[in-house]
Order: sequence, then C-alpha cells, then structure tokens
Amino acid sequence: MKRKNKIGLFGITGIPLIKEGDNIAKLIIESLNKNEVSLDNGDILVIAQIIVSKSLGLIKDLKKVKPSQRAIDIYHNIKNKSKIANLPIKNPELIQAILDESKRLIKSEHVLITETKHGFICADAGIDKSNVEGNNNISLLPHDPDKEAKRIRQYIQNKTKKQLAVIISDSFGRSFRIGSVGTAIGVSGISPLLDKRGEKDLYKRELKTTIIGQVDS
Amino acid sequence: MKRKNKIGLFGITGIPLIKEGDNIAKLIIESLNKNEVSLDNGDILVIAQIIVSKSLGLIKDLKKVKPSQRAIDIYHNIKNKSKIANLPIKNPELIQAILDESKRLIKSEHVLITETKHGFICADAGIDKSNVEGNNNISLLPHDPDKEAKRIRQYIQNKTKKQLAVIISDSFGRSFRIGSVGTAIGVSGISPLLDKRGEKDLYKRELKTTIIGQVDS
Repeated sequence: MKRKNKIGLFGITGIPLIKEGDNIAKLIIESLNKNEVSLDNGDILVIAQIIVSKSLGLIKDLKKVKPSQRAIDIYHNIKNKSKIANLPIKNPELIQAILDESKRLIKSEHVLITETKHGFICADAGIDKSNVEGNNNISLLPHDPDKEAKRIRQYIQNKTKKQLAVIISDSFGRSFRIGSVGTAIGVSGISPLLDKRGEKDLYKRELKTTIIGQVDS
Repeated sequence: MKRKNKIGLFGITGIPLIKEGDNIAKLIIESLNKNEVSLDNGDILVIAQIIVSKSLGLIKDLKKVKPSQRAIDIYHNIKNKSKIANLPIKNPELIQAILDESKRLIKSEHVLITETKHGFICADAGIDKSNVEGNNNISLLPHDPDKEAKRIRQYIQNKTKKQLAVIISDSFGRSFRIGSVGTAIGVSGISPLLDKRGEKDLYKRELKTTIIGQVDS
C-alpha cells in the first residue's frame, strides 16, 4: 500500500516527569533515541506547555499568594456561578495568581477570561493545576514562549543537524464551542500563519481572506 | 526506524470537481483505490464541507437574491469598516444570503458574525465564495451535516466492511485569534467531545474540567 501526501504524527513516550532546571531539549533527544525515531528536515516538534513551564520553575505555591481585595471581590462574584456551571470554585489565592499573570480581565462569569501579558485571550491566564505535583501548586505559562521554542529548536538542531520547527502547545478552550483544542503559544522555525491571500482558488479566482492558523490546525 | 504511537494523515488526490447529485462516498472510494489506500477499522475520513455542499446543490446565485431593507442597512453600516479592515465589501445580496442562513446576527463589524440555524457561531453563516464556480455563486453549509456524515460513513462502511468515522470539516475563524482552523460541522462514528473529567492526571488527582474537542483538534 502506497500512501502519498502523508503526514505522520508520533507521540514520543518515555519523557520523564520534568523538574526545574531540566534540559527539555536534551531529554527530547534521549526519548527520540529510545523510541528509535530519527528526525528529518522539516519535522515539527510539538511540546506541551506544561513541561516547558516546569523546566523553567514556573510553579507557584498558592499558599504563598496573598489575595488582594479585588481578588476577594471576584471570588464572591463568581463563586455561585462556578457552582451552577459545575466547575471547581477558585479560591481568592488562585484568582490573585490569575490576575498577576494578566494585563486585562475580560469576563468574570463562571470562568475568568483574561488577556495574558503575552496577549493571549484565554481562561485563567493559562494557569493550570492538572499534571502539577502538590495540591496547592499551579503552573504558569512561560513568559516568552517564542524564546523557549527557539532555544529548544536550536539545541536539537545543533545535535541532529536537521532543520526543524518547534511549537509549544497548550490546551485552550474556545468561545462559542465546547471542548479544548491544542493552541500554539510559542513557535520557532515555522510561520504561525499561512497567508493564502493573492493565491488562486480551484476556479482561478483570487483568495481575498484566506489566512490559515497552521500552527494551531 | 520504528515509530510507535503513530497517527498517519493522508491527503487523497484525484477527487474530481464535485457537481450537484454526485455521490461523494462513491467518489471517495474510487479515489482511495486510485491512491492505493485501503481503509482500516478506526480510520477517520475528514471531508471538506464544500464538496458536501456542492453535491447537495447548495450553491446559490446571488443575482437571484433580493436584499431586504435590513440587509441594505447592514451593507451601509459595514461597508467602510470592511474597507478599513482590508476585507472584500459584501454586497446587500450576500448580506441577505447570510441573514437567510442565520437565526441570529451577533456582530456586524467588518465581518458578520452570526449564529447559523445549526447553532454554529461563525463568520458569514459559513457562506463561502472561494472554490465555487461562477462570480455570483456562493456555497451554503449543509442543513444537517451530521446526517450527511452518517450517510457517507454508512455507504463507505458497506462497501469496505470497515468501521469508520466521518468528519465534515470547514475552516472557521476564531475569536481573539488570527488564522482559520479546521472545525468539525458534522460528525458520525466518533464522539465530538472526549470527556476526561473523573480521570486522573499524572499525580493521580482527578481532572475536573478537561473536555477535549477531539474532532476539531
């Protein structure tokens, strides 16, 4: 069976639980070797945000966060809405941590929608409790995800001598649509957007609006 | 080189330009054969909305659309905004066609965001001019995309004796994020959502909110 126009997606197993200071790029190469996967020019590595954040030590102990009056007010405002929506109730410390990572609070209904300091509009400023060790610990997004993607890419390119791209991906919920999807928060070696404007459609008419979010799709 | 945890994505070439009345399921099987691709149990076929719409004859000639006063008012309201945003200016006929496919107009800025009769919140009620033959023709979304997905799945399952899933996909723009991504509008044989609530994370703590939009990701 021949299969043309093929893209292969491979999940790499054996990445250990990441601690602060770990060299993710090195661990990825070791896991690729263990998985007997060799990289080719043009391959794209998609790395979960959580392991990048853990390696950077971006884990915060909520017991050390002192909530402001604003965080306490938001807590009282959204507590019941969260209960009705069957979502975990955020304590004022978590709300404060979310505010600390945000430059703007857009919506405080049963979920907090904020604009992060990077400009991402997402739930809870990208703060996550799942897959973080300890009941009071949260993970924060990398402060400069593009820089981290570049750092990882350069390390792996140097070792493998292959031309690669790196996408750091997080799960984002969406407006008007249930279910989270992988969303690129940091990118290196690939353009985030594939701008098809000016190209022609099947009937040779010019595409006027087509811009594809190719690192998210 | 062994590659485990592998997903293969294949673009099938040789699907002809689709006309009203074409049996897409049959054409897909013929193209799979020409591409020497055999289906396996669990394979997922992702089919572009446009070919489903064309096969159903859901092409509308805008010259036959009579704009209402509301469409004309919207035209005057958004004309300059479109120009500023460097987007094609929609004529009143196109605006009327969008209203005809919508149950609610959510935003009429430089783009019309509407809720379609299915409940999708998207630009222009999913109406598309690209890849549609003729300068005045537009394509409309299938009225019951899940039913179309089911029909195609059953036909191909009957012929191949394999257990398959079918996703009918369209390009949707997103709130707060540049770049369109593939979005499932019709699904058969796979659950649109992968609900992980109640499962455990890496540290054995229960996931409380994780629901993955697996047909979109």
